[in-house]
Amino acid sequence: MAEAEEWRPWEKLRELAAQPDPKPIADALEQLSEADQVIALGRLTAEERGAVLAALEPARAAELLETLPDVHAAEAVGELAPEAAAEIIGELWSDDRADLFGQLEADDVEAILRESPSATAEEVRSLLQYPPESAGGLMITEYVAVHEDASVAEVVAELRQNVERYADYVAQYVYAVSAAGALRGVLPLRELLLARSDRKVRELMIPKPISLPTSATLDEVFELFDRHAFLGIPVTGKDGRLAGIVLREDVDDARVDRAASDQMKSLGIVGGEELRSMPVWLRSSRRLSWLSVSILLNVISASMVPLFQDTLVAAIALAFFLPVVSGMSGNAGSQAIAVSLRELSLGLVRPLDLSYVLAKEASVGALNGLILGTLIGAVALLWKGSAMLGLVVGGALALNTILAVTLGGTIPLLLRRIGADPALASGPILTTVTDLCGFFFVLSFASLVLAHL
Amino acid sequence: MAEAEEWRPWEKLRELAAQPDPKPIADALEQLSEADQVIALGRLTAEERGAVLAALEPARAAELLETLPDVHAAEAVGELAPEAAAEIIGELWSDDRADLFGQLEADDVEAILRESPSATAEEVRSLLQYPPESAGGLMITEYVAVHEDASVAEVVAELRQNVERYADYVAQYVYAVSAAGALRGVLPLRELLLARSDRKVRELMIPKPISLPTSATLDEVFELFDRHAFLGIPVTGKDGRLAGIVLREDVDDARVDRAASDQMKSLGIVGGEELRSMPVWLRSSRRLSWLSVSILLNVISASMVPLFQDTLVAAIALAFFLPVVSGMSGNAGSQAIAVSLRELSLGLVRPLDLSYVLAKEASVGALNGLILGTLIGAVALLWKGSAMLGLVVGGALALNTILAVTLGGTIPLLLRRIGADPALASGPILTTVTDLCGFFFVLSFASLVLAHL
Repeated sequence: MAEAEEWRPWEKLRELAAQPDPKPIADALEQLSEADQVIALGRLTAEERGAVLAALEPARAAELLETLPDVHAAEAVGELAPEAAAEIIGELWSDDRADLFGQLEADDVEAILRESPSATAEEVRSLLQYPPESAGGLMITEYVAVHEDASVAEVVAELRQNVERYADYVAQYVYAVSAAGALRGVLPLRELLLARSDRKVRELMIPKPISLPTSATLDEVFELFDRHAFLGIPVTGKDGRLAGIVLREDVDDARVDRAASDQMKSLGIVGGEELRSMPVWLRSSRRLSWLSVSILLNVISASMVPLFQDTLVAAIALAFFLPVVSGMSGNAGSQAIAVSLRELSLGLVRPLDLSYVLAKEASVGALNGLILGTLIGAVALLWKGSAMLGLVVGGALALNTILAVTLGGTIPLLLRRIGADPALASGPILTTVTDLCGFFFVLSFASLVLAHL
Repeated sequence: MAEAEEWRPWEKLRELAAQPDPKPIADALEQLSEADQVIALGRLTAEERGAVLAALEPARAAELLETLPDVHAAEAVGELAPEAAAEIIGELWSDDRADLFGQLEADDVEAILRESPSATAEEVRSLLQYPPESAGGLMITEYVAVHEDASVAEVVAELRQNVERYADYVAQYVYAVSAAGALRGVLPLRELLLARSDRKVRELMIPKPISLPTSATLDEVFELFDRHAFLGIPVTGKDGRLAGIVLREDVDDARVDRAASDQMKSLGIVGGEELRSMPVWLRSSRRLSWLSVSILLNVISASMVPLFQDTLVAAIALAFFLPVVSGMSGNAGSQAIAVSLRELSLGLVRPLDLSYVLAKEASVGALNGLILGTLIGAVALLWKGSAMLGLVVGGALALNTILAVTLGGTIPLLLRRIGADPALASGPILTTVTDLCGFFFVLSFASLVLAHL
């Protein structure tokens, strides 16, 4: 293992990146597996990463860019001379190209577009006007469109003539458009294959196909792809003109990105992305943004303790049970949050169904609260020999668990109702309330029977 | 809003399900949107759900089954008479059918298969031998296979002859097989469309195509689909015989299921699935399985407190800071966990890169530890007017944050190294350690300077 720890291919790349000769860099890179290339480039500085990219053939550099995390890809391209960047970017798919431009500084974008062929530059500008998280931002412009009045023979001839251009297209469908470019229908390749050559596209196509406007949100795109098994859905702009197609694979990638970003956010990474190659001040400050909210929540939940200071001094054994009670009910409440998030995402429960969720969680909460309360009460009894202490902490845990479980079930619904993201905010809200109440229950019950503890 | 709360379409369905006449049930169901059908059926008992299903045409019932959560679908089918179930199941896709059978009781499976056409029964039995989480369990058997020596004209004729049978197939490719059924190549439909009709499949096909063995694990399937943009990948069984194809859309569904199940597990739902329609005892006991482990962890982390009982009595203000210090450093550590999980999934860090992660987290941990420590120290100073108390709690929080952040960064790597799932176990391990150490730091520092507090 010690040996494996010392595997550091980026050191060689770093050395080579400082030399003017590109050949050894390209050679060193090709000796690594694709996975190792991603790791090695991740350890370089942005400048070094740019030097590696500049050392490769444009097509190879484009391939490499597609395997890198977006942040690293954009950093590397930002380091290149505009002409070199333009050449590499010309090799990317239209959607990847637009994504990359979306991450670059405005100056770099302009400089690179000035060096790009005017058709590419125009296309990039038109794609950049759409937010990345929309159908327009997700679509590619590589598709085959034919006139609705064309015959099968004409379409096949057109395909044959442009075999090279269409070679990489994901061609499951051909799109039928009017003379003005409006989307009229979708023609599966299979229909084309099976039809007589004098039939017209118009007769074979699926008319009025399902489509997305360029302005559709990611959620609308996800929903449409969930509802239909299509591999691609056409996107239309103004006047119903065909603007591009969204492919299922790109939708899947967007879904994975969204989930990763949500997970990062729910664990307190503001902005939803942090890589360890980012500067320390950026990483530290993004994390602090959440921690400074969290310190306030923690102070609020602990604020119950000083109010019962005398009780705590008189029965100091309680100090052991305070974190156990609040921790346990927090855990029990998180389970109820998980089930509500699941049922919301399956569509089994609506934000309005509070009474249903309350009823369902009350029974599980009561059962598990009783069991956990009995367990912790038994610990108190066995450890301190005090039945009264057992009653106090057991009762507090039972009650707080019921509260936590019913709250945990309903908080996600309430958050969804006010338009907040339940996956992000449910946990912190629950923990704050259950800590506060847990402390309160233990300490106030104890004050009531203090003479007997 | 009060009105919307009272929207309860399942009550009507429930009433109708108790009647013998199927027509009104079908009518009532059709008046609901698809989303409302899922909710309404979710609120019914298994028996009532079966009655609704029995009231529908088999094709419509199959459609409905595909929209329901697996658990509800299987429960409903389990309630049907075997002949009725067989009819409905005959309308499902081969993979959905196998999934459904996988969730049924063994008795029900046998009873339904006895009523099914022998070809269907045989196919189900052959698919059921594969674990659901494998390429064999994921594949469908609806594909078009042609002999490698056939000509384009013969293939097109075969497709034309079977237009109806193939109509629903996701036909992006035709698969070329040997006389013995071994997979020889893949032929994109587009090639077929553009080729002269006397060319042979063998000349046009992509030979030695990428394929999966039926035994491939979900992770292997995910990886192959990540690496290639294919819409489907052929699956081969013994002797390289073509056994089925795995479609990207089914891979995506499996991915979503896996992620949902992981999230449920990480929040303490054993088994990875809970719907509120399940019986209370099952929901309660699955949740208790994790809570009983968690109670032990909570007791361990609080065990430091009784050891310093005298210190706590002497400086009771500490009781307020104990949960704040452990809670804050727990939050700071969770952020580091999130970043490690992200970098692991992007392939930017390997389980062996402990020293890299330690170095990167130490700087952020030290910076944020100092800032948080200063903040909480200032709170102590302002509240209690004691600089020494400020030093104790501030120092404890700073130290514990550095510990939590470096641990949080490395725990996921260590867990991955021993083959455990970092997404599930990292959180509980971190919280236990940071609670324990947080209590220890605050209380032991305080004992050292007790005279000055």
